[in-house]
Amino acid sequence: MEIYHRISDIRDYVKARRREGKKIGFVPTMGYLHQGHLTLMERAKEENDIVIASIFINPTQFGPDEDYEDYPRNLEHDAKLAKGVGIDIIFAPKVEEIYLKNACTRVEVDDLTTKLCGASRPGHFRGVCTIVTKLFNIVNPDRAYFGQKDAQQVLVIKKMVEDLNFDVKIVVVPIVREEDGLAMSSRNKYLSTKEREAALILFKSLTLAKNMIEAGKRDANLIKSQIIKNIENEPLARIDYVHIANEKNLKEVDLVTGKILIALAVYIGETRLIDNILLEV
Amino acid sequence: MEIYHRISDIRDYVKARRREGKKIGFVPTMGYLHQGHLTLMERAKEENDIVIASIFINPTQFGPDEDYEDYPRNLEHDAKLAKGVGIDIIFAPKVEEIYLKNACTRVEVDDLTTKLCGASRPGHFRGVCTIVTKLFNIVNPDRAYFGQKDAQQVLVIKKMVEDLNFDVKIVVVPIVREEDGLAMSSRNKYLSTKEREAALILFKSLTLAKNMIEAGKRDANLIKSQIIKNIENEPLARIDYVHIANEKNLKEVDLVTGKILIALAVYIGETRLIDNILLEV
Repeated sequence: MEIYHRISDIRDYVKARRREGKKIGFVPTMGYLHQGHLTLMERAKEENDIVIASIFINPTQFGPDEDYEDYPRNLEHDAKLAKGVGIDIIFAPKVEEIYLKNACTRVEVDDLTTKLCGASRPGHFRGVCTIVTKLFNIVNPDRAYFGQKDAQQVLVIKKMVEDLNFDVKIVVVPIVREEDGLAMSSRNKYLSTKEREAALILFKSLTLAKNMIEAGKRDANLIKSQIIKNIENEPLARIDYVHIANEKNLKEVDLVTGKILIALAVYIGETRLIDNILLEV
Repeated sequence: MEIYHRISDIRDYVKARRREGKKIGFVPTMGYLHQGHLTLMERAKEENDIVIASIFINPTQFGPDEDYEDYPRNLEHDAKLAKGVGIDIIFAPKVEEIYLKNACTRVEVDDLTTKLCGASRPGHFRGVCTIVTKLFNIVNPDRAYFGQKDAQQVLVIKKMVEDLNFDVKIVVVPIVREEDGLAMSSRNKYLSTKEREAALILFKSLTLAKNMIEAGKRDANLIKSQIIKNIENEPLARIDYVHIANEKNLKEVDLVTGKILIALAVYIGETRLIDNILLEV
């Protein structure tokens, strides 16, 4: 495995592999890898000849009061983990390699981005779409792998790929959870022991909702109010949003039917965590 | 030469040529080809193994009161001309092939697009950047050819390519003029005989400015006021803008020095024409 920092090195590498007829898989990450990322990488290895993972904490998808500066970083450890699952190349550029000082081009997906995380994090998806466009243009992959944990991101990226005719297949990989159910996230590192315990409220609330639906409940507002009540009982938790929506367009539903996404964003102390489940009713 | 209407056909064709190691040149046009387009195509033929030209009147770059419906179309004649200069493939998709009904993704270049044509035609460059992104993703060319007549478009596209890391070399080809100096344009077709004569005022005014600068004049405002006076003397002409600017950032200058763009947009009757010259002082 090699670590490249330069766009030109990645381009040269990919062009050489393409001349050999190799299929390229791509796993874009912000590093501080956990089993969720590694599962994406393993899937990419199964389906492609070559897998490139990027490790880049993209400043433009963080709001001014968010955790860009504090976002955990450990390239050396990441490299070991990535090598362990057979990644061929890590692309770990500096910010200056990716963003020129006078950069002024942005990619926007207008629908889908106003709700959920888009509402709490204005500009977030603009940053995501712009960096993913850039990385796709740099890496030129056949397939790119994203985690279902960022449910809205997955929908936005798929829409962007469709609308802008990127010749990249988007592969979505299910959420990987800790044994007790907490969705894996680099931000779990921020949690104190007490917060770590409290953070289980996300998974517990989703499970509660799932059980209600499996027991025949179909009133989305009732289910939502139960989720809210459940989270509000946890003193360390503060709700950002609870959303029961059509899986494709993210519009809130009154009736639970068809393919449904239940998505949460909850602050545990200072740490904002997200989680979701997909259900077919 | 073949004419393709489907994205999948272009993709298959390009992939097959790439496997043969061929270099792909691309000339995006809105059709109704004239010698300006053909010059782009000839240049592309010189520099690439394969040249693809697109003929697509992009609705999203026209304002609601502009000439999208009336824009001249003649695919059959275009095909003959393109074949004559050795184009390999024409890509002539229908609007529905390019834009899905629920498309909601756009590419924006924030600087450069507020002035000149961007000021007179709000949303124009958003439409241009979005369609060029899509066409680049569909055609996947090594080089793409644009005419200097659309001076601002050239700068915007170059910035977009830089900012979004497209692996496409942008080649800019000088303005092609009629014998009397009128810049070639598909929109010249709109001009009546009298308007055709009046339209010469654009080239004459640029020549006047050039002569003033060659005679040692450096006061941009003085030169600009001479251009304006000159155009205002033509009864059929109505100025949209006259801009004397830094060639790179399009900022208006007070002093004519370095690389300078003098750009005009002038209505001749109902027809909006643009023209420009680049000067190095």
